[in-house]
Amino acid sequence: MQPYELSLAAAADAIRSRQLSPVELVDSVLARIEQVEPRLDAYVAIDAEQARRAALAAEHDVAHGRYQGPLHGIPMGLKDLIDVAGWATTASSRVRTDHRAQEDSTVAARLTAAGAILLGKTHTHEFAYGLTTPQTRNAWDRGRVAGGSSGGSAVAVASGTATFSLGTDTGGSIRVPAALNGVVGLKPTYGLVPRHGVTSLSWALDHVGPITRTVEDAALVLTALAGHDPRDPASLTTPAVDYRPGPGTDLTGLRIGVPRNYYVDHLDAEVEAAVRHAIGQLEALGARLVEVDIPMARYVLPTLWGLLVPEATAYHERTLRTVPELYQADVRVLLEAGELMSAVDHVRAQRARTLMREQWARVLDTVDVIAAPTVPMTAAAADQETVTWSDGTVETVSDALVRLCAPANIVGVPALSVPVGHDTAGMPIGLQLLGRPLGERALLRVGHAYEQTQPARVLAPVV
Amino acid sequence: MQPYELSLAAAADAIRSRQLSPVELVDSVLARIEQVEPRLDAYVAIDAEQARRAALAAEHDVAHGRYQGPLHGIPMGLKDLIDVAGWATTASSRVRTDHRAQEDSTVAARLTAAGAILLGKTHTHEFAYGLTTPQTRNAWDRGRVAGGSSGGSAVAVASGTATFSLGTDTGGSIRVPAALNGVVGLKPTYGLVPRHGVTSLSWALDHVGPITRTVEDAALVLTALAGHDPRDPASLTTPAVDYRPGPGTDLTGLRIGVPRNYYVDHLDAEVEAAVRHAIGQLEALGARLVEVDIPMARYVLPTLWGLLVPEATAYHERTLRTVPELYQADVRVLLEAGELMSAVDHVRAQRARTLMREQWARVLDTVDVIAAPTVPMTAAAADQETVTWSDGTVETVSDALVRLCAPANIVGVPALSVPVGHDTAGMPIGLQLLGRPLGERALLRVGHAYEQTQPARVLAPVV
Repeated sequence: MQPYELSLAAAADAIRSRQLSPVELVDSVLARIEQVEPRLDAYVAIDAEQARRAALAAEHDVAHGRYQGPLHGIPMGLKDLIDVAGWATTASSRVRTDHRAQEDSTVAARLTAAGAILLGKTHTHEFAYGLTTPQTRNAWDRGRVAGGSSGGSAVAVASGTATFSLGTDTGGSIRVPAALNGVVGLKPTYGLVPRHGVTSLSWALDHVGPITRTVEDAALVLTALAGHDPRDPASLTTPAVDYRPGPGTDLTGLRIGVPRNYYVDHLDAEVEAAVRHAIGQLEALGARLVEVDIPMARYVLPTLWGLLVPEATAYHERTLRTVPELYQADVRVLLEAGELMSAVDHVRAQRARTLMREQWARVLDTVDVIAAPTVPMTAAAADQETVTWSDGTVETVSDALVRLCAPANIVGVPALSVPVGHDTAGMPIGLQLLGRPLGERALLRVGHAYEQTQPARVLAPVV
Repeated sequence: MQPYELSLAAAADAIRSRQLSPVELVDSVLARIEQVEPRLDAYVAIDAEQARRAALAAEHDVAHGRYQGPLHGIPMGLKDLIDVAGWATTASSRVRTDHRAQEDSTVAARLTAAGAILLGKTHTHEFAYGLTTPQTRNAWDRGRVAGGSSGGSAVAVASGTATFSLGTDTGGSIRVPAALNGVVGLKPTYGLVPRHGVTSLSWALDHVGPITRTVEDAALVLTALAGHDPRDPASLTTPAVDYRPGPGTDLTGLRIGVPRNYYVDHLDAEVEAAVRHAIGQLEALGARLVEVDIPMARYVLPTLWGLLVPEATAYHERTLRTVPELYQADVRVLLEAGELMSAVDHVRAQRARTLMREQWARVLDTVDVIAAPTVPMTAAAADQETVTWSDGTVETVSDALVRLCAPANIVGVPALSVPVGHDTAGMPIGLQLLGRPLGERALLRVGHAYEQTQPARVLAPVV
C-alpha cells in the first residue's frame, strides 16, 4: 500500500509512531497527483514546493518531539472558496482572476495550526452555484459528473490526490460529490464551523465541512474545525468536543428513523437496495428502526430556493452589473433571476424554514438518527440533463442531486454521507445519516460502526 | 386622591393591606372611563360587567388570604392586537370585524393568572401600521395626535382609564405614545416577552411591553410578562427575574452614554433642553456621562422599512386580495407597496441589521445605558403632516416619530421611555433609556432613580 492510499487516521498513526514521514506522505500524494490529476481536473492550483517545505518542517517537528496531533503532516485540498493568505480564491470563476486573499479563513487557519499541509485549491461549481462541477471528472468514470459544488474536493480524496479536503454545503454540495465519488462527507450543524473567510453562496444555508475516506477521518477533521468565531455572525458558542468515535460497533438502544415519505420517492432501484441493505446492517448491530414521517416535504425545494436565490444575487450584485460576461451562462441566469424575486416570497421562505425547524425538532425527539439515501441515483453522464423515473416523471439532474440533501441545509441539522457500495456499473452509492442539532457524535458513531463491519474501501482506480 | 389616580404599585400596596378593595378600584376607573373616555376614544371595547365580576372575585380572594401579588385586582387595558379568549381582536380594522379569539395570548394569560382585571381593548393604529392612532385623542390636548400605534393604551394610562396597559412596539409603538402622553413605556429585549396570540406587524421587529404611570409599575408588569414560550419561535429561554428596582437613587459608577450623533439631529429645542436637563439629573445622582457614537446611523430607517414592509405585506397577503377596500387608505398603500419590494433588498436589510447589532454591541460594551430623546418633538396637531426643522429640513410627522425609536427595534435592545416634563404648551416630553440585551434591570434602575428625584406625576386633566 502506498502512503497516498492511507486514511487520515492510518497516516496519522504512522506519522506519530515515526513509521512514516510527512515528506514521504506528501511526496507520495504529489506523485499520485502527477499521475491522475491531468485526467480528473480536481485542482484549480497546486503548490508542490510549498507543500514539500511544509512537509520538511513537519518531519523536523515530529522528529524533535513536537508532534501536534492527528492532522500533523497530513496533506489536504481546500475548496477554492476558502481563503488562504497569499493564494487566489478563484471560486472557479473568471470573475475572481484578480482576487488574492490577504488572510486565512478561520478553517484554513485552524487546519494549519493543527499541522495539516495544503497541497492546493480544489474546483467548485462556479461560486458553488450548481451541483455538478463541470470542470472536474468523476473519480470512478471520467464520462460522468463529479457532483458538486465541492466536486474537486471529493474527487481528490476519492482518487488519492489529497488525504482529506474541505468542502462547503449550501444545498448538498459536500454530500452530493461525496456520495457520487464514494467518500465520506459531513455537513455539520449550522453555525458549528465558522465561515469567516469563505466565499458565500447563501448565509442562511452555507456550511463548511470535511470530505474524507472514512468516518473516523471526518471526526478528526471536525474536531479541528469546530468552535466559536465571532466574525461569523451565525457561529455558535459551543464547548470543544473530541468527535473521534469509540471503537465499539454495538448500536443497542439507538433509534434510527427510517422515512416513510420524501426520501423514498423517485429512487434508482440499485440505490434504494444498497441503502436498505446498509440500514439492515445497522439493525443487525442492535439499532431499532422506527418509521418516521418527514414534515412539510412539499415545501423543501421552494424553501431552499426562496432562501438561497436572493442571498446569492445580493452577494454578486456589483459584479453582476460590472462584469456579467465573466460568469458562466448557467450561473449568470440564476443570479439575474434572483433580481426578480419579491421580498414577500423571501419572507415566506423564512417562515417556512421556521416551521420546518420546529417540526423536524419534534421528529428528532423520537429518534436519534434518520437514515436515508444521500442522492437518489449514482453519477449521471456528463452530458445528461434529465433523469426519467420509473413512473415516467422527468426531473433535471440538478433537482435530483439537491432533492434529498436540501432539508438538512434548511433545518440546520448535521448530515453525514457514508459510502454503502456501488451499483452494477461500478458507481458509488451514499447513505445519508441526519441527526439533531449538535448531534454530530451520534452520526459519527453510527457511520463508524457501519464502516467497521465492511471490507476496507479502495481508492478510485482512475483508469 | 381617587383610586383611579393611583400608580399600580400604590394600588397594589393598598389592596394587599386591605385599605383598598379591587371593587373600589375598578369602580373608580370605570367611573373615570364614563367621564373622559367619550372625549378620548382610547378604547375599542369595554366590558364593565365582566370587570366588576372579576373585581368581586379578587376582593373575595384577598379577603380570604389568597393575595396573588402586585397585579391582583389591578384594572388594565390591552391593545387590540392582543388575543383574549372570547373577545374580538379587531386591530382597529374593519378587516377584523368577524374575528373572535379562541384562546388567550401568552401575555393575556400571564396577566390574568397574576390577578389583573381586563377593562377593555384599546385602540391601535390599524394593524399597528402607523404612528398616530387617528381614532384616539392625545390625553393632554384633544387636538393633537395620541401617537401610535399603541395610542389607546398610552392615553388610557395617562388619563386614568386604566391603571396599566400593554402595547406593542415594532418601530416605536410603545415608546412614541408613552412619550407623547407623559407616561412610561418599555420595549423589552427582543424575545423576552412572548408574542404568541398577538397580531403581527413584523416578526423580526415586534415586541410586547407595558405602558404604566411609573417605572416601578413597568417593572412589576414586566416581571409577570417575561419568560419563555416555545410557541413564539423568537422567544428566549431566560431565567425568571424580579425586575422591581431597589429603593436607592445612587447611580455612582454607572456609565451613561450620551450620543454625539443621530439622537441629536433635528430636535425641538424644548425637547432637547428637557432631555439634557434630565441627563444632568442622572449625573447629579452619580452617573458618569460618556459620549458615544451611534453606528450606521444612516442605515436605520432603510433597514427598519426593509425588514418591516415585506413581512407586513406577507401577513396581510390574503385579505389584501380578498377585501382590500376594508383597509384604511394609509395602511393599504403601505401593504400594497410591499408587493413591489425585491427579495435582494430584504436580504440587504437583514445583513445591515446583523452588522448594526455587532456594532451596537461594541458601543454597549463601553457604557451601561444610553440616554436620548424618545421622539424629537411633542405631539403634533392632529391634521399636521410635516414638521419643518430649524435648518429648513422638512420631515413627515411619521418619520419624525419613528426616527429615534427604530434603532432599538432593529438591534433588539431594551428601551424605556420616561416622562421628563412638559413643553411650554403643556405637552409631555420623553427621555429614552437604551440598554444591553436583557439589560432591563439597568434601565429600570436608572429610570426609577430619576423619578424619585421628581415631584409626583399627575394624570392628564382631560378638559
